[in-house]
Amino acid sequence: MDVTGDQATVFLHQTIPAVGRLGVVVEEFSPGLVRLRVPIEGNGNHFGTMYAGVLFTLCELPGGLLPVGVLDPTKYTPIVTELDIRFLAAARTDVRLEARMDPAELQALAEQADREDRARFTLELHAEDADGRTVVSSTAHYQLRRNRG
Amino acid sequence: MDVTGDQATVFLHQTIPAVGRLGVVVEEFSPGLVRLRVPIEGNGNHFGTMYAGVLFTLCELPGGLLPVGVLDPTKYTPIVTELDIRFLAAARTDVRLEARMDPAELQALAEQADREDRARFTLELHAEDADGRTVVSSTAHYQLRRNRG
Repeated sequence: MDVTGDQATVFLHQTIPAVGRLGVVVEEFSPGLVRLRVPIEGNGNHFGTMYAGVLFTLCELPGGLLPVGVLDPTKYTPIVTELDIRFLAAARTDVRLEARMDPAELQALAEQADREDRARFTLELHAEDADGRTVVSSTAHYQLRRNRG
Repeated sequence: MDVTGDQATVFLHQTIPAVGRLGVVVEEFSPGLVRLRVPIEGNGNHFGTMYAGVLFTLCELPGGLLPVGVLDPTKYTPIVTELDIRFLAAARTDVRLEARMDPAELQALAEQADREDRARFTLELHAEDADGRTVVSSTAHYQLRRNRG
């Protein structure tokens, strides 16, 4: 899959309109890598800090996007099964998150899903504000499911 | 605080505009009780199931709303510090969640915050689809902070 961040952003907002309404931007998307940004504009609360649910979305999305960058999305569906998020500091700026998975690991998960219908994977991520301060960290569990058909 | 669900919904959407864009509705709000609903309309993904981030928001909000129903919001600020959410079943309908905290427990937390600047509390919640099936469960940790003034 060879797409620009802009194309990936349009795809993401079409696929999950609620994510579009939160303004999540895909800044970079290539096999094994995704960089996301979420704006503080429109996503603050009455303290002027970013709402927790917006930060959750930033931490959750890579488990859906990284497989799409490597595997055939008509064959495999990633779903989140559990996510633990720690709120470490208030975010008063745009927030960025980078996530990586080795494409070979994603291929191996697909082969396991071919055999066993599903394969589990975990992402440990963190997101940073404009000053490089970590505002949240997360541990997310996913299943890659083989589509029936 | 004696407000209708409609008034509480308007307050919530003004306080956290991102929550307004997700269409979260306060169906009932009284001291020690909050009932929330989130519509599937506009909140689905390409599988027609509710996006995970919307369900997170439903589980997270009560820790902010329940203190407001009992305590003076100019004196105390609840903030979420960690939330673990388990996705148990796909939601294809509106989803509802009910959360309760004994008003006496909230008063005790406020007294602790008066002495120690902050007090911790935890909410174990679950949300149900229109058929009464549990779609997510969550364990959320909060701090009630005394406002400096």
